[in-house]
Amino acid sequence: MLNFTFHNPTRIHFGEGQIKAIGAEIPANSRILVTYGGGSIKKNEVYDQVKSALENHTWFEFSGIEPNPIYDTLIKALDLIKAHDIDYLLAVGGGSVVDGTKFIAAAALFEGEDPWDIVTKQAPISSALPIGAVLTLPATGSETNTGAVVTRNGNKLPFSNPLVRPQFAVLDPSVTLTLSDRQISNGVVDAFVHTMEQYLTFPVNAKVQDRMAEGLLLTLIEEGPKALNADTKKDLEVRANIMWSATLALNGLIGAGVPQDWATHMIGHELTGGYGIDHARTLSIVLPGVMKIRRNEKREKLLQYASRVWEINDGDEQSRIDAAIQKTEQFFHTMDVPTRLSHVGIERSEIEGIIEKLTAHGMVKLGEKRDITPDVSHQILTAAL
Amino acid sequence: MLNFTFHNPTRIHFGEGQIKAIGAEIPANSRILVTYGGGSIKKNEVYDQVKSALENHTWFEFSGIEPNPIYDTLIKALDLIKAHDIDYLLAVGGGSVVDGTKFIAAAALFEGEDPWDIVTKQAPISSALPIGAVLTLPATGSETNTGAVVTRNGNKLPFSNPLVRPQFAVLDPSVTLTLSDRQISNGVVDAFVHTMEQYLTFPVNAKVQDRMAEGLLLTLIEEGPKALNADTKKDLEVRANIMWSATLALNGLIGAGVPQDWATHMIGHELTGGYGIDHARTLSIVLPGVMKIRRNEKREKLLQYASRVWEINDGDEQSRIDAAIQKTEQFFHTMDVPTRLSHVGIERSEIEGIIEKLTAHGMVKLGEKRDITPDVSHQILTAAL
Repeated sequence: MLNFTFHNPTRIHFGEGQIKAIGAEIPANSRILVTYGGGSIKKNEVYDQVKSALENHTWFEFSGIEPNPIYDTLIKALDLIKAHDIDYLLAVGGGSVVDGTKFIAAAALFEGEDPWDIVTKQAPISSALPIGAVLTLPATGSETNTGAVVTRNGNKLPFSNPLVRPQFAVLDPSVTLTLSDRQISNGVVDAFVHTMEQYLTFPVNAKVQDRMAEGLLLTLIEEGPKALNADTKKDLEVRANIMWSATLALNGLIGAGVPQDWATHMIGHELTGGYGIDHARTLSIVLPGVMKIRRNEKREKLLQYASRVWEINDGDEQSRIDAAIQKTEQFFHTMDVPTRLSHVGIERSEIEGIIEKLTAHGMVKLGEKRDITPDVSHQILTAAL
Repeated sequence: MLNFTFHNPTRIHFGEGQIKAIGAEIPANSRILVTYGGGSIKKNEVYDQVKSALENHTWFEFSGIEPNPIYDTLIKALDLIKAHDIDYLLAVGGGSVVDGTKFIAAAALFEGEDPWDIVTKQAPISSALPIGAVLTLPATGSETNTGAVVTRNGNKLPFSNPLVRPQFAVLDPSVTLTLSDRQISNGVVDAFVHTMEQYLTFPVNAKVQDRMAEGLLLTLIEEGPKALNADTKKDLEVRANIMWSATLALNGLIGAGVPQDWATHMIGHELTGGYGIDHARTLSIVLPGVMKIRRNEKREKLLQYASRVWEINDGDEQSRIDAAIQKTEQFFHTMDVPTRLSHVGIERSEIEGIIEKLTAHGMVKLGEKRDITPDVSHQILTAAL
């Protein structure tokens, strides 16, 4: 096990009916900006529940935060924050709304000249508005962590700062019952790949972290398809297990003390930034390529994954690894997401351009050993054709 | 899954050499009281590391906190706190030192007449001195949770309050290399039973919590005996896996959203309070009795435990449950702890007196369904003869 520091102070209220907890979580004299996306929260009654919980608070609203939140949209919130003297942000939505709200929280109190520097130059942040989150789509884990991803002019870039970690998060699985199949698929696949990126590296004898990661993978493999199946998709227990898995997949715990490989996410960001492909669908395309091209570097963990997650114990090592990759792809197919660039219409001739953008964004030493160079990323995308 | 609120803001610094982190964790202008036990920290250099890390801080010390910390000892710290205007407590030791320090933290700012009311009457606490912890014995999980147990006149009683949760905890597995076999055994068994008490109840389809609990049990079963074996006992990775397991066994995570059954602990406390038996050794005696007497109420989880933890899948249900109980007892024997009252010299005629004390302490409705009455506790102890 590697040395680590773990700290996750977000207070979590989990379960049906927990949205009412926000009333007590946000100080009574706060001036709140409720941030959300395209308005689905008005259809599924989440908006009404928030309104009711905040009936004794002063609050305003800012809507229109899109999937893969865009800088130009987010920056508009700053005027509202100034005009209404806002001192608390409440993000109501999925990971994109939470991510966008994190950027707004940092930008509102940013002391530099251009808030975009927070993302491109990792400009220092000395303070940020406090954030609470009401999660409506289990996927990114953003509701309890310090990271966010913002897009500008086709450049999708991450930043991270403890100051933007939500102070509390409400996870009510019943509000996820109105999600579309596509949203559920994307969420399950995102959480699955987050887990893999903290697990599928090289062994450091971190027994607890490995078993927790495997527990999340097994749960997502069991419950994900049930959330798409007509007979079981309304089962609240299925939704609860998915929701709690997605949060724990990226709250820092399974990644504490182990190597990590975020190459799949970084390469995937270029497919979203450049082609507008759903985030999770970039991951389901790139991850199998990473598994294939890095099969030697990840040999021991691939074999452990094969055995413990898929019960693949027979045959020689290479065939067990092949079978594990195949099972992973089958799981993605069951979740109805693409696993090849060709599934989303991207051709061999376009790989070079994708790698150029990846390089321009500084993503030239990816992977748990920083040895996934642009050449290796090229091989990964070629394996994903 | 049941509704829950989860919150654990303790910052954890894990790994060899992390004691130096306390210098930055404790505010520079603090007036610190370092609390510890019988002086083993002076033999294993932990004291020197703490001294070095605090070289720019003002600090005093209070030693002599014993296993199962005693009220009369702890209360003596209050004079020191007043005399030196102490505003921060640093617990350096095992769970008993951390527990005792939690009581001191609450008692120092207690506004009622008698601090013992904190334990016996759950008297309200409005503030407490901040605490940091340097853990030297992995076992109780006290280093990141809100609970503590204090003993007075043979009465061993728990209290819990978020105000006494340590702000940070240093977990350096290398400092556990000097522990005695008995201390290691006790720690592993304590963590194992904590996990069981949040796992072995009735199923609520909490897939992640179950798998995390099983991961901790499997890790303790694999690593515990290695920490006693001459060939492997100095292996830092073994110690690291045990240490992280013990913290996660009682940091609130595996118990969030599931029923819990603390009957083993509550009955065990009477054996420590009345007979001075090591805490963990009371648990290894009582747990098998609980498993036997509650085999019907816990049937489904006993079968899951048999299958997933011990790979017992053949035979009828009763024989699988029997085999799982037997495996648990064998594990305890491997860890060199007793599993019968007779192993510690307690006879059938003494059970009635133990049950009387349990009843006097209000422990009359134990278990996940509050239906372990004094009669059932009597059966449990009889099964443990």
